[in-house]
Order: sequence, then C-alpha cells, then structure tokens
Amino acid sequence: MNGKTSPFLNRLEATAKEVDELLDRLLTTTPVAGETARPVRLMEAIRYSSLGGGKRFRPFLVVESAGLFEVPRPQALMAGAALECIHCYSLVHDDLPAMDNDDLRRGQPTAHKKFDEATAILAGDGLLTFAFDLLSRTQTHPDPAVRVELVGALARAAGLGGMVGGQMLDLAAEGRFSADGPQHLGEEGVLTLQAMKTGALLRFACQAGGMLGSATPQQRKALERFGAAVGQAFQIADDLLDVEGDTALVGKQTGKDAGAGKATMVDVLGIDGAKARLRELVGEAEQALAPFGNGAAILIEGAHFVADRRM
Amino acid sequence: MNGKTSPFLNRLEATAKEVDELLDRLLTTTPVAGETARPVRLMEAIRYSSLGGGKRFRPFLVVESAGLFEVPRPQALMAGAALECIHCYSLVHDDLPAMDNDDLRRGQPTAHKKFDEATAILAGDGLLTFAFDLLSRTQTHPDPAVRVELVGALARAAGLGGMVGGQMLDLAAEGRFSADGPQHLGEEGVLTLQAMKTGALLRFACQAGGMLGSATPQQRKALERFGAAVGQAFQIADDLLDVEGDTALVGKQTGKDAGAGKATMVDVLGIDGAKARLRELVGEAEQALAPFGNGAAILIEGAHFVADRRM
Repeated sequence: MNGKTSPFLNRLEATAKEVDELLDRLLTTTPVAGETARPVRLMEAIRYSSLGGGKRFRPFLVVESAGLFEVPRPQALMAGAALECIHCYSLVHDDLPAMDNDDLRRGQPTAHKKFDEATAILAGDGLLTFAFDLLSRTQTHPDPAVRVELVGALARAAGLGGMVGGQMLDLAAEGRFSADGPQHLGEEGVLTLQAMKTGALLRFACQAGGMLGSATPQQRKALERFGAAVGQAFQIADDLLDVEGDTALVGKQTGKDAGAGKATMVDVLGIDGAKARLRELVGEAEQALAPFGNGAAILIEGAHFVADRRM
Repeated sequence: MNGKTSPFLNRLEATAKEVDELLDRLLTTTPVAGETARPVRLMEAIRYSSLGGGKRFRPFLVVESAGLFEVPRPQALMAGAALECIHCYSLVHDDLPAMDNDDLRRGQPTAHKKFDEATAILAGDGLLTFAFDLLSRTQTHPDPAVRVELVGALARAAGLGGMVGGQMLDLAAEGRFSADGPQHLGEEGVLTLQAMKTGALLRFACQAGGMLGSATPQQRKALERFGAAVGQAFQIADDLLDVEGDTALVGKQTGKDAGAGKATMVDVLGIDGAKARLRELVGEAEQALAPFGNGAAILIEGAHFVADRRM
C-alpha cells in the first residue's frame, strides 16, 4: 500500500468503524434475554480488550468474502464481530503472565496490567463465549442451518485442534515443557503450528463469507485456498516485522521471537527466503480467487496489504 | 439419600458412566474435519480436567429433563457432554492462582498444579470452545434450529451475563478490587451472584431437555422454574457443606468461604435459616414439575439429592 489514503485503506477503515460501532452497541452492561446481569468491571475489561483499536482485518475478510455473494452487510458484520471477539480474547489470554507475559498491546497496557490477572482471564472467557452467542442470533443469518454451521466451523478453527492448540504448540516450541530448551520444528512443524495459531481464524474469516452466502462447493474451496494463503502470508509478514520492525510502529515489543526461541518461517527460510515465500503466497491467493473475476479485487488487495504491512 | 445403592444413585452413576465414555471418545488426539492437529499435552490436560470423576449432575439433569419428552438418549448425552465441558473449564480457570488459587480438586492436584498455568489456561479455553463444537453437531439434534437454540442459551448461561459474570461478582464480593475489604451484598446481591455463578448452568441443564424435546411454552416455563429452584438449592447445600463439611469427603478445602469473605446464603440467613430455605426450594422444585406427574419422579429425586448431599 502506497499511502494512508488509498481506496483500500479507506475501505478497511470504514469496515473497522462499523465493527467497532457494532461491538460498542453489543458490549454494554445491559443484559439480554437469558442473562441475569453484566458486571461493570467485567464489561469495562471486555470493552478495553475489544474496542481499543485494531485493524479488524478478520471481520474485513468476512465482510468482503460475504460481499462476493451479496450477503446483507449487517449479517456479515455480526459474523465478523463474533470472530473479532475470539481474536480479542486470544490476545488477552496470550498476553497473561503465565503465557507470553506481555505488558504492551497496540501501544497500551495489556488487560491484566490495566486491570488484574483474574479480570483478564474472565474477560477473555467472556469474549470467547460471547462470540457463540452472537453467531446464534437471527441477525447473523435467518437460516439456523447457516448459523449452526458458522458455530461449528468457528469452534473448530478457534479450539483445541485450531488456535488454542496452536498456542500450545508455540509454547512447547519455546521449550516451556522440556529441559532441552527450544525445539527446532522444521518447515513442516512451523507450518502446522502457524496454520493453527493464526491461520485457522483467517481461513475461517474467508470461509464464513461462503457459508453466509450459500456458496457452491467449488466457491467454498476457492475461499478456503485463498484463506490458507492469506493466513500463511500474514504470519510470515508478522515474523518479518518481528525481525525488521520498529517497536514504535508495531505497538508491541519486537525482536523477542528469536530470543524466546519462537518457531518462525524466517527461522526456517531466512529473511530473503521468507520474503520470496511471501510473494508466492500472494500469487496463490490471487490465483485462488480467479473464478470470481473482478468481484474479488478487494480481497486480492487484502492479500497484498497483509504481505506489505509494516505495522 | 439413604445409602450408596439407592435406585437414584445407580441411575446417576450409570449416566455419569455414559457421559465419561462419550467424553473419552470425543476428547482424543485425533483431529476431526476442520481441525489441523490436537497437541498431546493439551489433550492430556483436557482429559485430566474432564475425565477425572465428578458426579456429572448437570448432564444428568439434561438427560432426565430430555427424558420427559422421549428425546433419544444419544442426543441428550451430547448436549450433556457439551455442558460438562463448560463446567469442567470453569473449574480449571477458577482454580488458577490468579483466581481462587486452589491446589486440590476432587482430592487431586488441580490442572495448573498437575501441569502448569499456561497449559491449564489453554485446556480451559479448549474445553469451553469444544462445548460449542459439540452442540453444533448433528448427533446433538437433527434440527439445526434446535442446535443453534442450545448454542445461544448455553452461551448466555455460561457467559458474561451468566457464569463468567458470576465469578466476577464473587471475586468483587471478596473485596479483590477494593480497599474496603469484603462487600456485604445482602440477600438480593447473593441471590444474583449465585443465580449467575452456579445457577445459570443448572437452569440451562433443565431447559436443554425442553429444547431438545420441542416442549410447549408452559413445559419450558416449568423446567425453568425447576432449574432455578435446584440451582439455588445446590448453592445453599454447597455453602452449608463449606461450613459443616469434612475436607476428606468433599475432596477440596472446606471452611475457606468465610475466611475469604465469600458471599453466601449461610452468611445472610444463618445455618438454620439456610437449611429452612433449602427445604422450601425442594418444595418449589417439586411443585414446578407437578404438570409432568409421575414422569418427573427422577428429577424430583434429583432435587432431594442436591439438598441432602454430604459431598
């Protein structure tokens, strides 16, 4: 991306604003039917953890992949907001002292620093659970079969065989549970870890559009391939940022992956190799969406954005 | 209950065995469609936290309330297993050092003691997420509208306006976030806290049978009233056990609620008052199910079991 005012960035920011507004309306202290009360401190921590900025790239992918099928925008935004709740909870829990022990997130104190550890754990649990509440609502889609498909797919993407499992593999790769120190996973091991830890939610984001839009099996396959390529590209770009990035721009501590023995593709392929792979992945992403023609231009710009981002 | 071999206890234990067997089959290291891999250490911690005994009283309520409507048993067991995953995750997270800091659970080391804190946090997150995966599966119910209703209801029972919110209120009542020490909530405050922290899942258990069985609105109302009474009775019995119970029988530290300034109905009503309330609640539970006649006998025995339990 060549500047702060590209049409793509405007569109990304406009969607982020819509997602923020939706989450702001949903995450109040007013209980809905089936709830008893929403404690003020819990909601403050949840709002702090989910409304504090962020590019909302995952909801963007949901909205734009749904756009291929003319899904009503409010439906796609609900699914995107649910996914964002999962993403935000994962950041809160990953930042905890027992996990990555991070003090900063997007340039602000992490939830357990701003509040306390117990509140951060509960805020994460609350956001995680809320995501499934949102997907179950008729505003997400009038057809319960579509809603329940989204629930199952998000649970598997986010759960023990997806994101949660990936975080577990990441901690293991650091050498957390072994006297032998950091593991060297090799390319296949790193790919599996990353497909789970960050890839699964990004794949889900792209697949969700197809689910909302009753896509054909071929269209679903195309979106899945696109999502897989974007997911890998996202993680490589993240790893490159960690090596080459600037703490002030990135808003979190950089250069810590190597020190912590984190398994990354930069580690496996070297900086130049990782950059070459990044280009290949953007090509794969473009190719995957060829069947959609010009309609997929914005998603392809999204793939470029992921690869080129500097923060 | 008058002995270890009552027909009621046999039935409770038989259901617990079925739930254990189902969870044992579901919680393996073999990924299902939509998952990438299930890390061994994570699954060990999840199995340790979910297969280590427990009366499975919540699944029992699901199965028996579903039994009023001749719901096929495998469906009720799936919903019960999902609910048990939520219950087990909540125990793992509540035991964490930053929360209640418990070393023992059912007479065994808690998950973070047996494994480590990061693994316990992730095992909890994984179990929580898995519950919604289970509810989304066709084995839970052939009608997606029923499955998605269960998802929404469980998310609200377990989430920020239910169980998670209740744990937050409980920590606040201890005086965790205030220089003024423990709060005195009064009867209404304690009732709200308990309706959320423990009541919400027990209410859901009873409501789930009605959802699975396409109950009429009146039948649903009856089950909700029954669940609310059982939930309150359960918590009062628990609080009485904490005051009067024996650590060896209960399998966790007793007598700690008063020390920690926990808000309980024993605190509000005194021991005799709490016992009287317990009897009233059992009466309310019986009355709620009167429309079901003899078919509800086992559920009513369940209400007595809750009130009379000594461990």
